[in-house]
Amino acid sequence: MGFDRLIEKIVALQNPTVAGLDPTLDYIPSHIKEAAFLKHGKTLKGAATAIFEYNKGLIDALCDIVPAVKPQCAYYEMYGYEGVFALYKTIEYAKSKGLFVITDGKRNDIGSTMEAYAKAHLGLTDIDGESLEAFGADALTVNGYLGTDGIAPLLSICKERDKGIFVLVKTSNPSSGELQNKTLSTGNTVYSEMGNMCENWGADTIGQYGFSAVGAVIGATYPEEQKEMRAKLPHTFFLVPGYGAQGGTAKDIVHAFNVHGIGAIVNSSRAILCAWKKENCAPEDYAAAARREAIRMKEELSSIIGKMEL
Amino acid sequence: MGFDRLIEKIVALQNPTVAGLDPTLDYIPSHIKEAAFLKHGKTLKGAATAIFEYNKGLIDALCDIVPAVKPQCAYYEMYGYEGVFALYKTIEYAKSKGLFVITDGKRNDIGSTMEAYAKAHLGLTDIDGESLEAFGADALTVNGYLGTDGIAPLLSICKERDKGIFVLVKTSNPSSGELQNKTLSTGNTVYSEMGNMCENWGADTIGQYGFSAVGAVIGATYPEEQKEMRAKLPHTFFLVPGYGAQGGTAKDIVHAFNVHGIGAIVNSSRAILCAWKKENCAPEDYAAAARREAIRMKEELSSIIGKMEL
Repeated sequence: MGFDRLIEKIVALQNPTVAGLDPTLDYIPSHIKEAAFLKHGKTLKGAATAIFEYNKGLIDALCDIVPAVKPQCAYYEMYGYEGVFALYKTIEYAKSKGLFVITDGKRNDIGSTMEAYAKAHLGLTDIDGESLEAFGADALTVNGYLGTDGIAPLLSICKERDKGIFVLVKTSNPSSGELQNKTLSTGNTVYSEMGNMCENWGADTIGQYGFSAVGAVIGATYPEEQKEMRAKLPHTFFLVPGYGAQGGTAKDIVHAFNVHGIGAIVNSSRAILCAWKKENCAPEDYAAAARREAIRMKEELSSIIGKMEL
Repeated sequence: MGFDRLIEKIVALQNPTVAGLDPTLDYIPSHIKEAAFLKHGKTLKGAATAIFEYNKGLIDALCDIVPAVKPQCAYYEMYGYEGVFALYKTIEYAKSKGLFVITDGKRNDIGSTMEAYAKAHLGLTDIDGESLEAFGADALTVNGYLGTDGIAPLLSICKERDKGIFVLVKTSNPSSGELQNKTLSTGNTVYSEMGNMCENWGADTIGQYGFSAVGAVIGATYPEEQKEMRAKLPHTFFLVPGYGAQGGTAKDIVHAFNVHGIGAIVNSSRAILCAWKKENCAPEDYAAAARREAIRMKEELSSIIGKMEL
């Protein structure tokens, strides 16, 4: 219940990092692309094959260092249904290696449609009596603009199947304040109103470490909001994007954690995915370079957060 | 530019209806499902095959009555990558029949990721020098919670490729007011703030009929908000869900249109998709029943809106 499974993995590895799997062809070493294009041509299938091969190498290199991966749907949809097949295979492979999988889809819709998304990404799809897992992630990012009936269908699946969601509260991008930091007539900001809704939505899904199944996305690039939300949302687990490439530093994210070093997982995508480019090492060494960057980030976070304890 | 192509189709057919293609297996007549399951078993592929066959029949029956279709991503993702293949095939088939295709994905993310969604659904994907269309819709629904930099990548593709977006402003669901109807310290509601952003985002994409490429989703279930937004957002074309099954009536949507009978397209999903069940006709007659319902709705809308003129 709640994010217990994720929290236990974080503590076991002493690492609150989620590796974002946002592959674009630019990030993928030539030898992987060439092999895929030789087999399938410069097609969506060729690209998707390269992406999955690349991801497999990363997952193998990271699975004993990081507790979780976060594939970002957009980078798979960009390669059509073949790309979406690579997303499916990536989730399946990551789970087989013991990783907690957060599908970053920021899905949102009215109740009946949200039920379809909930089944797609976290639940089971009924096919005339047969129950099948369409994508099978452990958690899904969602957008709460539609209010409670866009969230409710997810909550029942979270309870039944020990899954979680992360609702966008304060996003990491430069323009996030245009709406999110507007002040309401109650004195609350839009993001804090959304944060309150997360606490309410999660109220009866609280796990043994005090966090509910309804987490919040709060960008590393906004440390003040991070601090405010941590204080106001004691049962809400945070997914923190924006660390590294987007400008968030280890110091910026310290407020997302409680006194036990628990309360958030910090995403790193480009810095891990492209570590081989930054290191200027042999492209064949890309997975080892990703591992070195993940270890560096783990040490950086640990030095700021301290020991993570249940 | 703007929604000119869509507006011209609406006027040519004198019908501002978009048929929502939100297929679930429950809606699909048994003979279609049985044929698909015989070939592929009760699998995701079997379900996806049935969905595409069902959609093809609907598209054939509707393409000279309605100007547009709106496949809802959730109902395809629910059947995994096979379902997403059915989405791709549906878009391709609808376009081959001259329909304007609105992919209802309510996508949203930070700028770099939104660029990937924009390429996926409206643009072209580069594969090492080859440019391919991943999904190729004419318009995409999006969520503006992240502000301008989550919208900007779409605008360049809208301009380059004559595409459009619909931003969620006031959604049709019962709980939409929880956030959207909150009042800001400026006196504006959240939805009207979002509406203003739509007018601004669209400002340099205005087509020859006065509407920009940035439309707004405004539910038929909220006629007061509809009226207010039509008055405040003169250049914003509306996508109006919630008609029929969700409770919106023809009278409720009249305010979405200007004096020329232009300004909006009204979605109907279940009423069209399940017309054969409501009519209690032979399941083999499902497409003809959908056509009869589309004609009934067209006449109902025309009687309220009057003649649509460029």
